[in-house]
Amino acid sequence: MNAIKFKNNRLFFLDQTQLPLKEVWRECKTVNDGYDAIKHLKVRGAPLIGVFAAYCACVELQFLSSDKTTFLRQLEKTLRYLASCRPTAVNLAWALTRLEKVADKNKEKNIPRIKSEIVKEAVAIHTEDVRLCDRMAVYGEPLIREGDRVLTHCNAGFLATSGAGTSLAVICKAHEQGKKIKVYVDETRPLLQGIRLTAWELKKKKILYEIISDSTAAYLMQQGLIDKVFVGADRIAANGDTANKIGTYNLAIVAAYHAVPFYVVAPFSTFDLRLATGDQIPIEERNPDEVRMILGKVSVAPKKINVFNPAFDVTPNNLITAIVSDKGIIYPPYQKNIAIILKQ
Amino acid sequence: MNAIKFKNNRLFFLDQTQLPLKEVWRECKTVNDGYDAIKHLKVRGAPLIGVFAAYCACVELQFLSSDKTTFLRQLEKTLRYLASCRPTAVNLAWALTRLEKVADKNKEKNIPRIKSEIVKEAVAIHTEDVRLCDRMAVYGEPLIREGDRVLTHCNAGFLATSGAGTSLAVICKAHEQGKKIKVYVDETRPLLQGIRLTAWELKKKKILYEIISDSTAAYLMQQGLIDKVFVGADRIAANGDTANKIGTYNLAIVAAYHAVPFYVVAPFSTFDLRLATGDQIPIEERNPDEVRMILGKVSVAPKKINVFNPAFDVTPNNLITAIVSDKGIIYPPYQKNIAIILKQ
Repeated sequence: MNAIKFKNNRLFFLDQTQLPLKEVWRECKTVNDGYDAIKHLKVRGAPLIGVFAAYCACVELQFLSSDKTTFLRQLEKTLRYLASCRPTAVNLAWALTRLEKVADKNKEKNIPRIKSEIVKEAVAIHTEDVRLCDRMAVYGEPLIREGDRVLTHCNAGFLATSGAGTSLAVICKAHEQGKKIKVYVDETRPLLQGIRLTAWELKKKKILYEIISDSTAAYLMQQGLIDKVFVGADRIAANGDTANKIGTYNLAIVAAYHAVPFYVVAPFSTFDLRLATGDQIPIEERNPDEVRMILGKVSVAPKKINVFNPAFDVTPNNLITAIVSDKGIIYPPYQKNIAIILKQ
Repeated sequence: MNAIKFKNNRLFFLDQTQLPLKEVWRECKTVNDGYDAIKHLKVRGAPLIGVFAAYCACVELQFLSSDKTTFLRQLEKTLRYLASCRPTAVNLAWALTRLEKVADKNKEKNIPRIKSEIVKEAVAIHTEDVRLCDRMAVYGEPLIREGDRVLTHCNAGFLATSGAGTSLAVICKAHEQGKKIKVYVDETRPLLQGIRLTAWELKKKKILYEIISDSTAAYLMQQGLIDKVFVGADRIAANGDTANKIGTYNLAIVAAYHAVPFYVVAPFSTFDLRLATGDQIPIEERNPDEVRMILGKVSVAPKKINVFNPAFDVTPNNLITAIVSDKGIIYPPYQKNIAIILKQ
């Protein structure tokens, strides 16, 4: 199961805004198509937008100049344009920086060679992402026990990566291992990734689940119905502070209040060690219409209603029980242990 | 501004499921109309459904038997039917019990006289509710200071009562007193009372406000943007445990985490002193389609998606800073102080 396909230099993606009611595949033919797809969450999920953006750049290569100086300048502009699309998930900038470095390393070579190196790197990022997902699943799976009722927020499954997912890959792995589990899924307002995407994935995998409105999570914990929380991440600072979908911080507080372990699952590409703490992570503020209109289809309130719509929040490290990475499980103290484990 | 009108024995209500896009008034001609209106939240809010149900019984009187024994039996059946409509808000049963007592007290009189006593009591409940709102506003208003940023959940304004409201009346009073305040409003999934109803009320009163998705509240508190939380209530146990719209408990936890005062505003009719603690409050579980379909208009997920949809939760007394009642502000220890203040 994949959310994107790159074949013969053509890039296709599953339009996630149409799920779960329709499964529509579209082609990304230009960098503008790609920018639009990421901007409007047709392609979303921190690891996936990194891989997808790298392929978008590959697709655009055919339109760049045959004069090398111009080519290199246009390539750089393309990469910066894509990187500017969404500010919070660091995987986007991380993947494009990798392409930039490859271009720089090969700048003395001819254009066809530079192009082929860029494509090779994009494919490498993709292949690597698949492997990272598998490793997170292997490391994280033992955290889930037979009979666990696990809560998750937003979507961190195969639709959010180019592999099996981050937090949802851990959950699915536990199911594959034969553990009887139940997954509660926050619907995740405003864009409803939980009820639209995560439920769709869990249903496909025949895993027992139930959707709740976001503010029902605390009620379930009060009733003793949640054993663990697993979420993905969009950016993790050097001290473990974690940016993720709005509502994650809320969930971490209520989990701590009920002594429910709270796990973050993310590959090394989601860590941003240049940032000492989460305060420095830019928080994307999105169109208020996402709240006023449901999925752009039906107005629940007039246009003139005032809305504040931040798309992410930052969970401070002290609320996180552990971070499952592709290099192993990281426990506090995060400042020290993230540095050690990521260097491995 | 009113959400219901009772005139010449005819009962009209503003259909709150149509707000804010349309202001549609409907007539309640039979007890079945009334039951339907309450069940489907066309008329909602704990105090309002008490007043409205009492009037529904009045409207039904004309259809009851002219034989007194049968009349009294039918009346009792009508009251029980209405009381069974929604289980959590105690005001519903409380108002109908008042009518039952009046019928019982006057059972030796003739039918026209019993009818007129019933109508008199319904009007008394209505008049009293208006006064209770005014008193809560007067008692609660000093809790809000110049410049406060106040957060509220669901709708506890004039649409939820037959007067000025409970928690929203306190907020509006502060505005009327000239205090510059800002109100953040949770959209309140699944039925979006915050963005549909509270925003509509605040807009009418020209009070500065902003709507947020429910799980954004914790983020705002983290940023230091919330000074106080004010919510209404559907039922308060003898020890102060408070049932209110799902998400209230979540909000109380995040408020406590950020040391933000958390106030409940409710009239004496919302207290249920027969219940020692909140554990005994019945929690209404509503149709999963409320989560799957937005306001019955647009599907976000197929019918077969599993959903758990409790409509209320219970906030334990230790998370409540104070309860603003029509008899004054009640502080902890609640067990003792509720008993003292409600006896006044």
